[in-house]
Amino acid sequence: MRAAVVGVTGYSGTELFRILSNHPEIEEINLYAREKEGVLKRCLNKEVSAFRNIENELLPYDAKKIMEQNDVVFFAVPAGVTSKLAAPFIQNDFPVIDLSGDFRLKDPKEYEKWYKKQAAPKEELEASCYGLADFYKPDTSYIANPGCYATATILGIAPLLIKQLIKLDSLIVDAKSGVSGSGKKLTENSHYPVINENALLYKINSHQHVPEILQQLKKFDSRIGSLQFSTTLIPITRGIMATIYAKPKDADGFNLEALKKAYAEVYHGKKCVRVLEEGFPQIKDVQYSNYCDIGVAYDELSKTISVVSVIDNLVKGAAGQAVQNMNDYFGLDELCGLPKVPAWP
Amino acid sequence: MRAAVVGVTGYSGTELFRILSNHPEIEEINLYAREKEGVLKRCLNKEVSAFRNIENELLPYDAKKIMEQNDVVFFAVPAGVTSKLAAPFIQNDFPVIDLSGDFRLKDPKEYEKWYKKQAAPKEELEASCYGLADFYKPDTSYIANPGCYATATILGIAPLLIKQLIKLDSLIVDAKSGVSGSGKKLTENSHYPVINENALLYKINSHQHVPEILQQLKKFDSRIGSLQFSTTLIPITRGIMATIYAKPKDADGFNLEALKKAYAEVYHGKKCVRVLEEGFPQIKDVQYSNYCDIGVAYDELSKTISVVSVIDNLVKGAAGQAVQNMNDYFGLDELCGLPKVPAWP
Amino acid sequence: MRAAVVGVTGYSGTELFRILSNHPEIEEINLYAREKEGVLKRCLNKEVSAFRNIENELLPYDAKKIMEQNDVVFFAVPAGVTSKLAAPFIQNDFPVIDLSGDFRLKDPKEYEKWYKKQAAPKEELEASCYGLADFYKPDTSYIANPGCYATATILGIAPLLIKQLIKLDSLIVDAKSGVSGSGKKLTENSHYPVINENALLYKINSHQHVPEILQQLKKFDSRIGSLQFSTTLIPITRGIMATIYAKPKDADGFNLEALKKAYAEVYHGKKCVRVLEEGFPQIKDVQYSNYCDIGVAYDELSKTISVVSVIDNLVKGAAGQAVQNMNDYFGLDELCGLPKVPAWP
Amino acid sequence: MRAAVVGVTGYSGTELFRILSNHPEIEEINLYAREKEGVLKRCLNKEVSAFRNIENELLPYDAKKIMEQNDVVFFAVPAGVTSKLAAPFIQNDFPVIDLSGDFRLKDPKEYEKWYKKQAAPKEELEASCYGLADFYKPDTSYIANPGCYATATILGIAPLLIKQLIKLDSLIVDAKSGVSGSGKKLTENSHYPVINENALLYKINSHQHVPEILQQLKKFDSRIGSLQFSTTLIPITRGIMATIYAKPKDADGFNLEALKKAYAEVYHGKKCVRVLEEGFPQIKDVQYSNYCDIGVAYDELSKTISVVSVIDNLVKGAAGQAVQNMNDYFGLDELCGLPKVPAWP
Repeated sequence: MRAAVVGVTGYSGTELFRILSNHPEIEEINLYAREKEGVLKRCLNKEVSAFRNIENELLPYDAKKIMEQNDVVFFAVPAGVTSKLAAPFIQNDFPVIDLSGDFRLKDPKEYEKWYKKQAAPKEELEASCYGLADFYKPDTSYIANPGCYATATILGIAPLLIKQLIKLDSLIVDAKSGVSGSGKKLTENSHYPVINENALLYKINSHQHVPEILQQLKKFDSRIGSLQFSTTLIPITRGIMATIYAKPKDADGFNLEALKKAYAEVYHGKKCVRVLEEGFPQIKDVQYSNYCDIGVAYDELSKTISVVSVIDNLVKGAAGQAVQNMNDYFGLDELCGLPKVPAWP
Repeated sequence: MRAAVVGVTGYSGTELFRILSNHPEIEEINLYAREKEGVLKRCLNKEVSAFRNIENELLPYDAKKIMEQNDVVFFAVPAGVTSKLAAPFIQNDFPVIDLSGDFRLKDPKEYEKWYKKQAAPKEELEASCYGLADFYKPDTSYIANPGCYATATILGIAPLLIKQLIKLDSLIVDAKSGVSGSGKKLTENSHYPVINENALLYKINSHQHVPEILQQLKKFDSRIGSLQFSTTLIPITRGIMATIYAKPKDADGFNLEALKKAYAEVYHGKKCVRVLEEGFPQIKDVQYSNYCDIGVAYDELSKTISVVSVIDNLVKGAAGQAVQNMNDYFGLDELCGLPKVPAWP
Repeated sequence: MRAAVVGVTGYSGTELFRILSNHPEIEEINLYAREKEGVLKRCLNKEVSAFRNIENELLPYDAKKIMEQNDVVFFAVPAGVTSKLAAPFIQNDFPVIDLSGDFRLKDPKEYEKWYKKQAAPKEELEASCYGLADFYKPDTSYIANPGCYATATILGIAPLLIKQLIKLDSLIVDAKSGVSGSGKKLTENSHYPVINENALLYKINSHQHVPEILQQLKKFDSRIGSLQFSTTLIPITRGIMATIYAKPKDADGFNLEALKKAYAEVYHGKKCVRVLEEGFPQIKDVQYSNYCDIGVAYDELSKTISVVSVIDNLVKGAAGQAVQNMNDYFGLDELCGLPKVPAWP
Repeated sequence: MRAAVVGVTGYSGTELFRILSNHPEIEEINLYAREKEGVLKRCLNKEVSAFRNIENELLPYDAKKIMEQNDVVFFAVPAGVTSKLAAPFIQNDFPVIDLSGDFRLKDPKEYEKWYKKQAAPKEELEASCYGLADFYKPDTSYIANPGCYATATILGIAPLLIKQLIKLDSLIVDAKSGVSGSGKKLTENSHYPVINENALLYKINSHQHVPEILQQLKKFDSRIGSLQFSTTLIPITRGIMATIYAKPKDADGFNLEALKKAYAEVYHGKKCVRVLEEGFPQIKDVQYSNYCDIGVAYDELSKTISVVSVIDNLVKGAAGQAVQNMNDYFGLDELCGLPKVPAWP
C-alpha cells in the first residue's frame, strides 16, 4: 500500500510518519505540502532535524495526483483546511483519514461556534464518519479521526453510559494534558520557563473537544446534555490523563464490583483498551503506544465514581488511532504496524 | 527572638531555615536533632550541600534546653514524633509550631486510623489548636500547622460552605501535587525516570489529609459528611493545585457573580490569600511565596462550580504558614519575614 | 533609598523587583516603561500574573524624572537600549546599574561585531565600569553588570590566571544553561516540546559573552588570547554550570593541593563565592541565591584541571549581582538584601 | 528465531523487550529470571505496569534450557552476574549478547580495579568480542555489548584517531547523561526533587566506562594513554550527549573541511551513524532510535576541535546496539527490527 501524508511536519505528522514507516503493509509514503512555493525538491530532512537521513520529498499538494499515487491519504493539518479540500476525495470515494477537527462535528453550526471558522458543507459532513476506532469500523471512506482529549474522555466514560450506571448530570472531567497537544506553534503557555515547574488551566469550559465529546456520548445515551470539562496543562511533552467523576444512578445498589464488571464487559476483546483490575493507570504506562488504559474506583462515603483514562496524545490521540482506522478500513489486523509495547521508562 | 528548629534537614526544615534566616525579628536560629550519637559538632553545612557556608550546629535534642535557649520551637519532623515529645512544652506553655500531622486531628481514633501510629494523649490534643492562619489566630501555645493539601483544599472550599452556596454531598477535589510533598525519602514514585514525563494517582481515597480537611470543613458547616479527594502526582518539585468541583445548592438563583462575591467577601483583608477577579491561577503564580491564589468559574450548562486553589507546598503548605502562625502568636505583622513576592519564572 | 527599575517585566526585571522588595534599605521602588502609549495607569499586576497583588504603576520613561524621584536606576532591558539612553545619567553622575550588554565591552568595534548594533559613544563607555562585584568596587556611577555566562566563567577561571597556573592556550569552557537565560521571547529553542527531554548547543563559538569574558580575563593575564566556549541549553529554568578545563603550566610541579590553595586564597573573604573543599557543586546548590559555588579537580593521568562553577543566572548572573553592585556603590554591606540561603529543594 | 532475555525488568531489559517484540525475525521471546523463588508463573505484566497486557512468564534461570529453547540469549543484568554465568554458553558456542560490563574489559585486573568485583576467567574474556557494532562484525559467539557512555564517546572520537588528526594528550570529554542511565535502583541522585531543575557531576574521573573507552581507542591508535572524562547528570530520562574537545596535531595545516571529511569518510556507509553536514545534533534527534548523530566544529582562534555525539542511552547505548549485534551475528540486515525513525517531539 501507498500512503499519502499531508502536513507531515507538525507533531501528529511526524508521529504518523514514524508509525507508517514501521507498518508492514505500507510500501511507500508520499508527502505533500500545501504551500505552493519552494516545495519542489524540499526534503523532509530539512524540516525535522531528527529525520535527517530521511529523504522523502515534500511534493506540492494536488488532490488528483494524491489519488493517483496513493491508496489512502492522511491529513495531519490544523482546523480550517480539510473543510476546503475534502470534496474531490469524497466524490471519488477515496479513503481519507482526517486528523483535524473539521469533520468531527456533524452540525456545521456547532463547528462554527467552537472553531470560529467556516464549516465543511453539510453533505460532506454527512458523507464522513467519526472514527472512534474501538467502537466503530469505518462505514464511509472519509474518516474523521477523533481528538486527543475526546478519545481519552469518551473511552473513559463509555461504559458508564452504555451500562446506564450514573446520574447523567453528574459528569465531571478533570483532564490533564502534555504540551505537545497544542502543537508546534510557539505560544506563551508552551514557553519553557512558563510551563516548566507549573500547571495551569486553559480554555476553561471552552475547549473545542467538548461538543465532540457530547456528540459521541449522546450516541451512548441520548439524554445526556452537558458535562463539566476542565483542561489542565502539565509539564510533560506527551500524554493525557482524563480523570472522570460521576455519581451512581442508584447508590444503594451500586458497588465497585459492578463498576469493574461494566468496564470489563464493554472493553472485552478490544485490543487497544486495557482495563485495570485494580488501581489507576499512569500516563507512562501508555507512552509511545496505541493503548488507552483505564482504571476505576468507587468511594463509598462520598458515593463518587472515579475513572482514570490515559493515552499518548500523539499516538492513540492522533497518529496511532489514525492508522488503527486505516487498518480497520482496509480489513487489516487492527494492531498492524501499531506500537504495541509502550516505551518504559 | 530566638527560634529553635527540630528536623531542619527535611524539605520543610530547609525551607523553614531559609525563611527564618530572612526574618527581621529572628536573631538566632538554634538547630536540634533527635538522634543521640554523632550529633555534637555536626554542622548544617555537612547535611545540605546548598547550605555549605552555614555553620549552625545540630545540637542534641533536649526539651529543657530548647525552652531555655529559645522563644519558640518549630518541629519539622515526620508523623509519630511530636506525639511523644510535646508534653514538656505544653506543660510549660512554651510556644510550639508543629509542622507534623500529630496534633492536627482532635480525635485520637481518627489519627490512629489514618496514620497507623499511636496518637498523642487526648488532653494534649485538646491543649493544641489547628493553625489555619488565614482564619484563626492561635489561642493556645501549641499550634498544629496544617498539611499542604489541607491548606490548599480548605482555603479553596471555605467560602462555598461559609456562604452556604453548595450541595454538601457534591464536593469533589482533584488535587495535583509536586514531588517534594513526599519528602526526602527515596520512593518508587519519586524516582526520576518514573515520575518525569508522567502523572499518577496515589493514596486513592486514603490520603491522611482527608480527615484533617473534613474536620475543618465541619467547622464551617457541621452537616458536611464526606468529599471525594484525589491526589495526582505531577512532575514538578514544588506546588499544589487543588481543583474543586461542586454543585450549587440552588442552581436557579446562582451565578458567577454570586460565586465571586462570596470569595471576595470571605477573603477580604486576608493578606495571604489572593482571589482572582477572573480566570484561574497557575502554580507558578505562588512558587516561593506564602500566597494561596484562588480563582473560580461556573459552567451554566452543567451547573458546576469550579474552584482552583494553588500554593507552594513548602511555603504556604508548610514552613511559610508556620512562620505566619508564629507571627500571629507573637503579635507581629502577619507577613513579617515571609516571602511576599513570588519567584518568576 | 528609592530605586528605579526600567524593564521590570522581563525575567531579570521580575527577579530584581523581588530582591529589591526584600531589601531593608529600599523604601520605594519606582517602575518605568519605555513604550509611550498606554503606560500611564498600567500596573505591574497586569503584566506578571504572579505579581497580582502588587500595585506599582509602570510610569512613562523620563530620564529627568527618574533622577529626581530616585537614588539609583536599574536598567533590565535588552541590548541596544541603554547605548541610547545613558547620556543624561552619565552627565549627572547619577548611579546606574545596567543589566544589559551595552556597556560591558570597552571597545565599540567589538560591541558592534558581536551584538550587531550600534555601540554607545566611546566616551560614555569610558565613563562606565564593569561591575564584577566580587573583584572590584564600582569606581564610576555607571556600572555595567556582567552577563550570566561571563560571571560563572570568569569567577571559575580567575584563580587559574591570577596564580599563573595554566597554559594560556588550553582553556576550554563547556557551559550549560537553563532556558530562562534567553528571556521571555518565544523561540524555537524555548518551546517546551523541543527543549524538554533534550539538550542542544546554540550560538556555537559565537556567544556575545565571549568577548566580555576575554576582556576581563586579560585583566588577570594580558597574554591570554582566546578560549573555546560552548553553550549547551539544558531543560531547567534557572541556573548555569560552567565546566572549565585547562592544562597546568608545569605539570610536574602541579597537584590538586596547589589548585585548591589558589582558589581558597583568591576567594578568601569574598562573601558571594563559596569554594568547595572537595568535589563539585550542583546547580541546585545556588538556586535562588547570590552565590557562585566553585569546585576543582585534577586528573593526574591526563594532566587536566577541571573547574565547575555554578550560579543562578537570574540572581548572581543578573539581578542579584546588580544589587550587590548597588550595595557596594552605596557602601552598604555587600550582602544587604540579597538572598543568602539557597532554596532547597 | 527465538530470543531469550535474562533481566527483562531493568530499563535496558524493557527496552530490549520492546525492540525484540517489533523484530520481524523474532518469533518468540522467552524471559528468564535469576531469583529462584516465586519465579514460576510470575508474569511480565506484574513486573512492569506499562506491560500490563503482556503475558510472557518469567521462567527460572537455567542455562541448559535457555540454550535448548532459544537461538540467542541477551543478558540485561548488572555487573558481576555474567562473569559467573557465561561458561556453559561459551563452551557450547551459543550466541550471547551481554549488555553488562563483565566482558568488556579484556584485562581482568582492569575490571577488578574499576568494578570492584571479581572478573570473569581470562580465557572466557578472550573467547568474547567487544560488540562495537558500527566498526566490527562479531567474530565470537559471546558478544560484550558496549556501555552507553562508551558508545557515544568512542563513535565521537574514532575519526580523530583513525585519521590521526589530533594531539593524543589533548582529549577532553564532557559527557551529559539522562537519569535512566543509572537504572531502576533508587538513589539520592535519581530522587526527583534532587535532580529536577539541577545538573550535577558524579563519579568524577572514575566512571567505569573510562577503561572501556581507552581500550577501544587504543585499537585506533595504540599510543593514546589517557583522556579527561567528565559525566554530568542532567534532568532528562533518556539520552547522552558527549561533547569532545581536542587540539589538532598540526594546527597550521588544519581546517574545518579536513575535519568534516574525516568524519564523512569514516562513517560512509554506516547506517546507524548520521554525520551532520553542519552544526551539532540535539539529544532529541535520536531519542527512541538506534542512531548516533555526530556534528563537528573547529574554532580557529583557540585552535580547538569540538565534536558532539548523541545517542539514546537505552537504544544505541544498550538494547538497540544489542539487537544490531544480533543482526550482524546472524547475517540479517543490520537495521532489521531496529527503530529507524526517531520519535519527535
